[in-house]
Amino acid sequence: MLIWRKTMEMIPGGTLITATPEEGRQLAMTMARKSIGAIQPEAEVRKALPPKYANSPDSLTAAAQVVALEFATIAAANKYWRKNS
Amino acid sequence: MLIWRKTMEMIPGGTLITATPEEGRQLAMTMARKSIGAIQPEAEVRKALPPKYANSPDSLTAAAQVVALEFATIAAANKYWRKNS
Amino acid sequence: MLIWRKTMEMIPGGTLITATPEEGRQLAMTMARKSIGAIQPEAEVRKALPPKYANSPDSLTAAAQVVALEFATIAAANKYWRKNS
Amino acid sequence: MLIWRKTMEMIPGGTLITATPEEGRQLAMTMARKSIGAIQPEAEVRKALPPKYANSPDSLTAAAQVVALEFATIAAANKYWRKNS
Amino acid sequence: MLIWRKTMEMIPGGTLITATPEEGRQLAMTMARKSIGAIQPEAEVRKALPPKYANSPDSLTAAAQVVALEFATIAAANKYWRKNS
Amino acid sequence: MLIWRKTMEMIPGGTLITATPEEGRQLAMTMARKSIGAIQPEAEVRKALPPKYANSPDSLTAAAQVVALEFATIAAANKYWRKNS
Repeated sequence: MLIWRKTMEMIPGGTLITATPEEGRQLAMTMARKSIGAIQPEAEVRKALPPKYANSPDSLTAAAQVVALEFATIAAANKYWRKNS
Repeated sequence: MLIWRKTMEMIPGGTLITATPEEGRQLAMTMARKSIGAIQPEAEVRKALPPKYANSPDSLTAAAQVVALEFATIAAANKYWRKNS
Repeated sequence: MLIWRKTMEMIPGGTLITATPEEGRQLAMTMARKSIGAIQPEAEVRKALPPKYANSPDSLTAAAQVVALEFATIAAANKYWRKNS
Repeated sequence: MLIWRKTMEMIPGGTLITATPEEGRQLAMTMARKSIGAIQPEAEVRKALPPKYANSPDSLTAAAQVVALEFATIAAANKYWRKNS
Repeated sequence: MLIWRKTMEMIPGGTLITATPEEGRQLAMTMARKSIGAIQPEAEVRKALPPKYANSPDSLTAAAQVVALEFATIAAANKYWRKNS
Repeated sequence: MLIWRKTMEMIPGGTLITATPEEGRQLAMTMARKSIGAIQPEAEVRKALPPKYANSPDSLTAAAQVVALEFATIAAANKYWRKNS
């Protein structure tokens, strides 16, 4: 069963607008990470997990997929930083 | 087999429009959570599940993917809150 | 092997336009459910499945992902119900 | 290993434009089905598979996800059939 | 561990523009196939894999999902070939 | 448990704009690869993984899905390189 918790701040800075694509990418990673953290926040439980998870390419690929989805939204919000290019 | 149930309210407030990205993110999490709840709503069954599920990074990542998808729709609905930035 | 069957009506009402986001969300769930029904429609087989499936958070999350995808299309079709907000 | 084969006709009728959402939905299912068929077309192999696959809710859900993705493209191509609603 | 290799040509013809939806669909399949080929290109290894993979409906469905995603991009690039319909 | 690390440069060149679709595709692969690298960066651990992972068609397909998602964003940023076609 999944536990969902509303955390204080899901989007640091409270905006999807960033100065550069690079910052947008970092925001995408932060949002993905916070999203996972909000769903299951017990840090002790997470730390107790066997380290094999981080080794699984499939886990990493799934997480990378979340980052790609978040980044698509952020990039659209910033109109793809076209003025910066 | 999956059971689908129409619940009273799938979208709290009845609108995708939110004041801030942060509120949009909370709505995305709520919609994802309600969606899962509507598909299998027997609370007793869910509570009886072994707690290992919440520990699985893959489960959390899959749930985070749903949140990312819902948020993409909400962000587009709000035109990415560009005026708020 | 997956079996695909064209059913009578995949989209109830024959339109993606709904009055409210809430109705749009219900349509998304119905379309997801009918889609699964069209791919494997033998009701007896589905009923014979062990009830454990409904217990799996991963199954529910995957179904919630389909709902999120259908809803994204419906929300765009309705221009996000912006006039209703 | 996956085998990919270019088939004669991947999109029946050669267009994404349909008269109604219902026909668009049927096209989405046909395209998803043909896509799977093109990747592994040996009909004898598919028929030899144990029938358990069709029973798995996860398999059906994954297929429904493909249908949802194809339908999103078709719906956009048809500008969501807004004139028909 | 996944191996990524930059190949000579990921997009045959160097453009996303095609004359017809059918050609766009073929391009989507080619891009998906080349993408997989670029990530793990040792042809000998791939050939040594047991043939069971091609039999798995879930593998085919996952591959069909990649095709659907690539096609969505190609269809948008071609403005859904609306003039051809 | 997944480990997330902010790396120096997630988007090489700091822009989503590329001269050609081909370069856009290479950027999509690089971004997907760097994303996975940022989530679990211990190179020694990755190298210690059994080589079977690279052999799994499902792993490759999942990675190809991330590439497809990243490419969709890049293609939109470049307005699908329509002027180049």
